[in-house]
Amino acid sequence: MALLDRITSPADVRALPARRLGDLADEIRAFLVDRVSRTGGHLGPNLGVVELTIALHRVFESPRDTLVFDTGHQAYVHKLLTGRRDFSDLRRRGGLSGYPSRAESEHDVVENSHASTALSWADGIAKGRQIAGEHDRYTVAVIGDGALTGGMAWEALNNIASGADRRLVVVVNDNGRSYAPTIGGLAHHLDTLRTTQGYESVLTWGKTTLRRSGAPGRLAYGALHGLKKGIKDVVAPQGMFEDLGLKYVGPVDGHDEGAVERALHRAKAFGGPVIVHVITEKGRGYSPAEQDVADRFHAVGRIHPETGLPLAPSRFGWTSVFADEIVRIGRRRPDVVAITAAMLQPVGLAPFEAEFPERVFDVGIAEQHAATSAAGLAFTGLHPVVAVYATFLNRAFDQVLMDVALHRAGVTFVLDRAGITGDDGASHNGMWDLAMLSIVPGLRLAAPRDEETLRAALRAAVDVDDAPTVVRYPKGAMGEALPALEDVDGVDVLARHEGGAGARKVLVVGVGSMVPTALRVGELLAGHDLAVTVVDPRWVLPVPAALVKLVGEHDHVVTVEDGLVDGGIGALTGQRAREAACLTPVQSFGVPAAFLDHATRDEIVDELRLGAHDVAADVLRALGARS
Amino acid sequence: MALLDRITSPADVRALPARRLGDLADEIRAFLVDRVSRTGGHLGPNLGVVELTIALHRVFESPRDTLVFDTGHQAYVHKLLTGRRDFSDLRRRGGLSGYPSRAESEHDVVENSHASTALSWADGIAKGRQIAGEHDRYTVAVIGDGALTGGMAWEALNNIASGADRRLVVVVNDNGRSYAPTIGGLAHHLDTLRTTQGYESVLTWGKTTLRRSGAPGRLAYGALHGLKKGIKDVVAPQGMFEDLGLKYVGPVDGHDEGAVERALHRAKAFGGPVIVHVITEKGRGYSPAEQDVADRFHAVGRIHPETGLPLAPSRFGWTSVFADEIVRIGRRRPDVVAITAAMLQPVGLAPFEAEFPERVFDVGIAEQHAATSAAGLAFTGLHPVVAVYATFLNRAFDQVLMDVALHRAGVTFVLDRAGITGDDGASHNGMWDLAMLSIVPGLRLAAPRDEETLRAALRAAVDVDDAPTVVRYPKGAMGEALPALEDVDGVDVLARHEGGAGARKVLVVGVGSMVPTALRVGELLAGHDLAVTVVDPRWVLPVPAALVKLVGEHDHVVTVEDGLVDGGIGALTGQRAREAACLTPVQSFGVPAAFLDHATRDEIVDELRLGAHDVAADVLRALGARS
Repeated sequence: MALLDRITSPADVRALPARRLGDLADEIRAFLVDRVSRTGGHLGPNLGVVELTIALHRVFESPRDTLVFDTGHQAYVHKLLTGRRDFSDLRRRGGLSGYPSRAESEHDVVENSHASTALSWADGIAKGRQIAGEHDRYTVAVIGDGALTGGMAWEALNNIASGADRRLVVVVNDNGRSYAPTIGGLAHHLDTLRTTQGYESVLTWGKTTLRRSGAPGRLAYGALHGLKKGIKDVVAPQGMFEDLGLKYVGPVDGHDEGAVERALHRAKAFGGPVIVHVITEKGRGYSPAEQDVADRFHAVGRIHPETGLPLAPSRFGWTSVFADEIVRIGRRRPDVVAITAAMLQPVGLAPFEAEFPERVFDVGIAEQHAATSAAGLAFTGLHPVVAVYATFLNRAFDQVLMDVALHRAGVTFVLDRAGITGDDGASHNGMWDLAMLSIVPGLRLAAPRDEETLRAALRAAVDVDDAPTVVRYPKGAMGEALPALEDVDGVDVLARHEGGAGARKVLVVGVGSMVPTALRVGELLAGHDLAVTVVDPRWVLPVPAALVKLVGEHDHVVTVEDGLVDGGIGALTGQRAREAACLTPVQSFGVPAAFLDHATRDEIVDELRLGAHDVAADVLRALGARS
Repeated sequence: MALLDRITSPADVRALPARRLGDLADEIRAFLVDRVSRTGGHLGPNLGVVELTIALHRVFESPRDTLVFDTGHQAYVHKLLTGRRDFSDLRRRGGLSGYPSRAESEHDVVENSHASTALSWADGIAKGRQIAGEHDRYTVAVIGDGALTGGMAWEALNNIASGADRRLVVVVNDNGRSYAPTIGGLAHHLDTLRTTQGYESVLTWGKTTLRRSGAPGRLAYGALHGLKKGIKDVVAPQGMFEDLGLKYVGPVDGHDEGAVERALHRAKAFGGPVIVHVITEKGRGYSPAEQDVADRFHAVGRIHPETGLPLAPSRFGWTSVFADEIVRIGRRRPDVVAITAAMLQPVGLAPFEAEFPERVFDVGIAEQHAATSAAGLAFTGLHPVVAVYATFLNRAFDQVLMDVALHRAGVTFVLDRAGITGDDGASHNGMWDLAMLSIVPGLRLAAPRDEETLRAALRAAVDVDDAPTVVRYPKGAMGEALPALEDVDGVDVLARHEGGAGARKVLVVGVGSMVPTALRVGELLAGHDLAVTVVDPRWVLPVPAALVKLVGEHDHVVTVEDGLVDGGIGALTGQRAREAACLTPVQSFGVPAAFLDHATRDEIVDELRLGAHDVAADVLRALGARS
């Protein structure tokens, strides 16, 4: 790390002689593989942008010039070059964020990890510089080819193209796949070779790479074949960009640092908005990643740095139960089709795709289109299942409301990573879904607590053909089965603690992944001579009448959810009870309306006082105040 | 109306000999001008699509083939040709909807009036037909050039392009302006002439039009000049569409019915997704509309059919107060810039643009980009004011949350037509904004009640530089000034009715446009020996501490708002009070979570029991139940 040790700011990068940059890149890659394999994080994307990031910091002067990274998980190299070396607590509390962070550095601008936003940010910043008359300050956006399938990127390009004299450079970091191979007409277009010269030079680079990696026999053939396809997938969309009125430079081999520098200098000299098309290889320089077709190295948990194999084998999780059940449903129900927004593998649709390839649609990073095209599919009598991370459904709120719900379309949304997710930071938490979806008329939402309730919720959801249904569950491992003692009109009674004679009656309502907490709260309260019933309504939107009735039969109600407490299930339950002239107080526990710093889920739960002991203590305090 | 009288279904249109179609078009135009001038409605867009709609119904067989209209206000001709002749109560309760409506006809599919959705609907429907093996059923989407600036249209095109053998026809209805002249790189691209032949034939058509209209002298010159520019603005984006892998047919003169039919037949024969580019003239055949550059005939109130002048001159409205105040602010604050999503005129930014042309950005129908580019502008130290209709902000929820709020950007959103709007139907009501925005951390929202509070709210909003601010107000005329008796820590006390000794104390809270109702409720309650205080918190998000304190000082609280009652201001106020251990009941009145049929605002208010008499009666009932 002889060179890396001397880099404390971009000025140090600029001061290096060009001949040392290859060594610097090697050091950075070694550093990333070593550190990220220990902490987990986005390895592949960062290995792909080493030379590109070095070139950016040599040609532009951050923070005077502004660098904006789309889907900021590709900013690790940027962090290194702007003086952040301590990756030991990456994505952990107090450690570096997995995304750019203004609190960390003046070189960071955009913290939002949702895709396709960088061009809009850059357009705004460039407009601001223009108004200020600062014609020597450049704005540079780095965006992946996958993120270009997102609608807001196109909205932005359309605007960028109209700003003829703004100093704005759009770097398209083209690796032919975002989370998964980029799909759709854009990819097809990229498939059309325009610049034979460009293609040839990139192909040469590909061959050299193969020689260097020394992969023999079948692997070499496969890799070459894949590489060729990859290259054909990525070369030369200049026609399209130039149609929009944008100057186009490229394609450039993104692992030839000098070539990237030259392209960026050309772009800088142009004086107006320019697209620089850079071809990179995700996972570059790390052979387990380069050889992985299923893109497992996009984001990794802790792995063995040599083999790339997970250190802690992933446990039986919510996603895999969904993956299994949706295939079973698909066998029984030929009308069920699935939609993913560029995340076939992460959301668990790969087995469904393997069995029913004609019935899966990967729409690109395009949640709006996912929702509305689902309404269209439903119009023809099919039942679409749209599987996305909870946080990304925020982007399709209008479409869920106006296209799906208004048209009473039978569409099922499956929200993975709902609730507090933790280490991915503020914009990955799926904590808005319950409050946001509670205002969609007619929508029905289930928050299953364990494997069996997840399977049952999915089966019930696809049976609804006149309204949107939603099944939401958290990230990660699934706990043990939590069978019900009794089903009271759809509300599962999970535990009953009889109090002494005259004991006050407390109802504890757990929502989805917080049911185990609710059970523990019930136990803790039972130790204080209270008659406690713990229930799980499973279907929480609309608030079940049976739950409202139960509220009226108790002296105090406690709700625990891992969504926003304002406008959440507890708040709604209380409102329904009051509308029914029931005066039982409803004490709601959930997430406050605030952006949560990255930390583990458990740490955040503790911090928010959503652990069982804190909840029980607050309940006892409230009961004490009332007794 | 000899021909029109014989049209009861599309089959009748197909049965007409081609030589009669010009007469049919003339009859339809005369019918539209006559009827829409009496009721108000979207005149210009429908006059522009007469021949196109006739051709669509002759070439395709609805409902076996599916016609999807983007931003359905261009569907009046479609309604006529599918047997709906009674326009006497257009957009009124019990009359025809101003948009397609499934309840009205089996020929209607998409009721959502938000732009840019049709291609996603069509993609889903075409996928569904393909899965069903129904290769003889076509899906046809009609979308304006303006709506192509919306990101989800691009998401859809990218997907449509990948479905090589689906029977899908996208008709781009290109009139060079949507609400306003289409802007951005797309328009610039359209500016590039590709097909000289196409250009010439359209130009000929333009000249013929001018000769027919007989406009003399300067007007003729101006019109010809404008027309030329218009034509150059619209011809030939085939390069871009073909880059995406889409077959392109056009450009076609959209007022030559035979030519449109021929183009549609060509598209139909192709067997895969096809773009048909049709050039039309908004307001065609109605000279007041054709001569109107400011696009006033996009949507009209009741007008004189000959002159096109409004019958009831528009009253002093919320929009014009905003228009005036933002100019004043602009003079004082050079850092204030404005953003509109293709609605410069309707949202009241035209005067600001006239005075500060460098400080206004029309981003196209692109609310996502509007919000995020505003965050970028704020990053450079400017204060952007994003002015949109309330209902359209739903589309930028994720961007308001993740780009503006998470980054603590000082951006002001001005929401016109908030609350119940009425005659535009379900998807134009701005009733989701309060609940949706209440879950955005740090966001501050004002709901002014009259001119002075609107001006003050705007001034205060642009002074906040570390959080999103929102000012929301209703559609239409503004009532009289409602001065405060007293300001209690930011909460305006508007009326005090002293009750007798021992009278119960009721607090009535009015939100924004519902303050007059709250005042009337106060008067009605005062007649029942209650001590009533009527207040307006003005800034309702976050719920002011002073309001929570007032709640604690009363025996019963009533809140009245014209947003969703679930998750609304009343619900939140109650929650804050309970969190402060205050047990005063809060009775909230607002809009239920349901889609509202079109009717006048007053009719809807009555139906929802949000009129003063109904509210007062419900309050008295609740008080009676508790006494």
